[in-house]
Amino acid sequence: MSVELKRGLEGVLVAESELSHVDGEVGKLVYRGYDIEELARGASYEEVLYLLWHGALPTREELDAFAADLAAERDVDDDVLDTIQTLADAGECPMAALRTAVSMLSAYEPEVDADPEDFDATRRKGRRLTAKIPTVLAAFERARQGEEPVDPDPDLSHAGNFLYMLTGTEPDAVSEETFDMALTIHADHGLNASTFTALVIGSTMADIYSSVIGGIGALSGPLHGGANQDVMEVLYEVDESNKDPVEWVKAARDAGRRIPGFGHRVYKVKDPRAKILEEKLRDLSESSGDTKWLDYTTAIEGYLTEQGLVENGIAPNVDFYSGSVYDSMGIPMDMYTPIFAMSRVGGWIAHVVEYQEDNRLIRPRARYTGPKDASFVPIDER
Amino acid sequence: MSVELKRGLEGVLVAESELSHVDGEVGKLVYRGYDIEELARGASYEEVLYLLWHGALPTREELDAFAADLAAERDVDDDVLDTIQTLADAGECPMAALRTAVSMLSAYEPEVDADPEDFDATRRKGRRLTAKIPTVLAAFERARQGEEPVDPDPDLSHAGNFLYMLTGTEPDAVSEETFDMALTIHADHGLNASTFTALVIGSTMADIYSSVIGGIGALSGPLHGGANQDVMEVLYEVDESNKDPVEWVKAARDAGRRIPGFGHRVYKVKDPRAKILEEKLRDLSESSGDTKWLDYTTAIEGYLTEQGLVENGIAPNVDFYSGSVYDSMGIPMDMYTPIFAMSRVGGWIAHVVEYQEDNRLIRPRARYTGPKDASFVPIDER
Ligand SMILES: CC(C)(COP(=O)(O)OP(=O)(O)OC[C@H]1O[C@@H](n2cnc3c(N)ncnc32)[C@H](O)[C@@H]1OP(=O)(O)O)[C@@H](O)C(=O)NCCC(=O)NCCS
Ligand SMILES: CC(C)(COP(=O)(O)OP(=O)(O)OC[C@H]1O[C@@H](n2cnc3c(N)ncnc32)[C@H](O)[C@@H]1OP(=O)(O)O)[C@@H](O)C(=O)NCCC(=O)NCCS
Repeated sequence: MSVELKRGLEGVLVAESELSHVDGEVGKLVYRGYDIEELARGASYEEVLYLLWHGALPTREELDAFAADLAAERDVDDDVLDTIQTLADAGECPMAALRTAVSMLSAYEPEVDADPEDFDATRRKGRRLTAKIPTVLAAFERARQGEEPVDPDPDLSHAGNFLYMLTGTEPDAVSEETFDMALTIHADHGLNASTFTALVIGSTMADIYSSVIGGIGALSGPLHGGANQDVMEVLYEVDESNKDPVEWVKAARDAGRRIPGFGHRVYKVKDPRAKILEEKLRDLSESSGDTKWLDYTTAIEGYLTEQGLVENGIAPNVDFYSGSVYDSMGIPMDMYTPIFAMSRVGGWIAHVVEYQEDNRLIRPRARYTGPKDASFVPIDER
Repeated sequence: MSVELKRGLEGVLVAESELSHVDGEVGKLVYRGYDIEELARGASYEEVLYLLWHGALPTREELDAFAADLAAERDVDDDVLDTIQTLADAGECPMAALRTAVSMLSAYEPEVDADPEDFDATRRKGRRLTAKIPTVLAAFERARQGEEPVDPDPDLSHAGNFLYMLTGTEPDAVSEETFDMALTIHADHGLNASTFTALVIGSTMADIYSSVIGGIGALSGPLHGGANQDVMEVLYEVDESNKDPVEWVKAARDAGRRIPGFGHRVYKVKDPRAKILEEKLRDLSESSGDTKWLDYTTAIEGYLTEQGLVENGIAPNVDFYSGSVYDSMGIPMDMYTPIFAMSRVGGWIAHVVEYQEDNRLIRPRARYTGPKDASFVPIDER
């Protein structure tokens, strides 16, 4: 075949989508035409979910009904909570625990037998999944601390309720807003690797649970969502070694290591979500008086800019700042990627439904480079 | 962007691979150059796994060591068996139960913390997974029958041990051989949707468990592995309605229904694996004297050939015959797709390792068709 090899599918268009657009040249992200900065400032995660799933921003009345429906689905079955306890006892990591628990949720899905082409049923299943993921995550975090799960509070927002279930205390307004904003800006991002995974699975007309679980798996990888945790590990490594962050990054570059939180397939300039989070980190640092993470990240970014990396398109991405923001809220490091999943599930579901409504099986090919006509010899003659 | 849209990624080359090649024009499938018909006749599933994972067919000595290593990994943790019982009690379907149980296995993986680039560790993890999947499936099937799991017997082959764990009785030679052949011919098939799913997940350098779980999800879809169960449901539907199979297929065509077990993205002629299974079904029918499924499938294929479908490239695929073969072995219908997974896991692992050894993140794009510059209005002004 003389067809060109498309390594990593860079630049290949696999579908049409009205959901979000990443302009990598100017560093702009929109959800259905709305700029991410405006949404981050002015819309809640629930509003953004509504926008992605239903096509337009809701009125107050629409939002209230939607948020209430979502909040009503937060409970998870006791059997799932038991398995979460078992996983915590076995020392499982949160992303894998989330993957297992979400997979198990399908056993308690009331519409499990719906026709795969009943897209309203798929949306409802997606809503249930989205509602329950925070419950699963908070229960897991508490289980490994030896604490009982905290029941969800339907009067709290998606963001506020998660923080409440994590700690047992209602969050203050700044924490809730900050966390809500983090959810908002992570909700969708074109055909990133986890969304594309969800799409490939969905293109077989498999159940939405399978798509979401595939998405969780892809997001866990260090080249994708796993990078936010890696960034924070670097910051702690620097801190504990008492090294200058610039020295650390120099050494890492010399060793040929990739710097987590830098580089992106689509952005060739600084990720607009990184800018939003950087600003937030600045606010949080100023109000707490602790500027350590801000200083380190600024120093690392400054050095890589000086070295020309940023100019060459290896600029800070969303993961470079999210960890520091979560850390200053007291959230454990290995929960960052699960929190990314808790937000991105909204995008996964939106993309799968949009794709399945005009479905085609996603089935590419590999260029075969193996032997041509190997002649088989039975084992005892080998 | 003026780039062409590649719906379903038809014909797009995403990677190079030495593992298998599908020649869709002549209907030929090879694993590393060996024709599938020769492998089906002459090689066991363990030999084929060795071929895919280690690059060459094993000598007797190599095979014995490899098979012993595989057999030694069949036990699954009691906690996983407990969850399997819970899933069975909740009425979960086998593919979803398999997905949950395999996900849970990672909590008991001894090399869970291995470097993602330690590909030997990835191969060992893959071997553990491959060894344990039959145990999980058999335990689930027994759990829903109200029976205790049967411990794996390391002296039996991969195929024989599965049938033994399913029933508690050692299978006869014909059943074991037939089942082994079914595993052999399903083990790999280029970048089909589930293998491609595993690859996308693997391209983020996520853990092999995540890739395999994604593969299970994709395989469950009716456009992919789910078709083998759909075919059998059709055959039973025909049987129970006392209709002529030709009448059934006529009515289905008139109603615009897709006929499960027909059509393929790559094969434009009859799938070579379908030919192998058809022959096997013929043998089994002759020796049992019950030719019902053979008669029905022959009638359906005959009608669709007459109608020109087959000539137009919508020919029988592997799923058209596998169900009848399993049915004549007494295996329940909803275990067919899980059995497909139990075999294909070998291909998923081989492809992921091959890809990760020269990795690039798989991240395509969508053509954005949504609004351009939507101007944000705060909720209370909407
Ligand atoms: C995200 C990422 C996988 C996208 O990369 P991609 O489009 O596949 O690009 P490639 O892997 O082909 O990299 C292109 C070049 O940039 C370099 N590069 C990319 N990211 C880099 C990083 N974070 N640090 C240093 N160099 C980097 C590569 O080494 C490569 O250089 P080379 O051509 O000299 O070999 C990559 O930037 C990366 O690994 N980043 C770190 C992990 C991360 O932050 N992920 C979260 C993304 S939101
Ligand atoms: C496997 C499959 C998804 C591959 O198809 P694809 O390459 O994506 O092709 P498309 O879905 O674009 O179908 C091409 C045309 O063939 C028709 N077609 C494909 N499979 C068909 C089937 N099983 N019965 C009737 N018509 C079929 C489609 O309706 C379409 O016709 P149109 O162009 O008039 O709309 C498809 O053949 C199918 O759905 N088969 C049934 C399920 C099955 O057996 N899957 C197991 C595959 S191993």
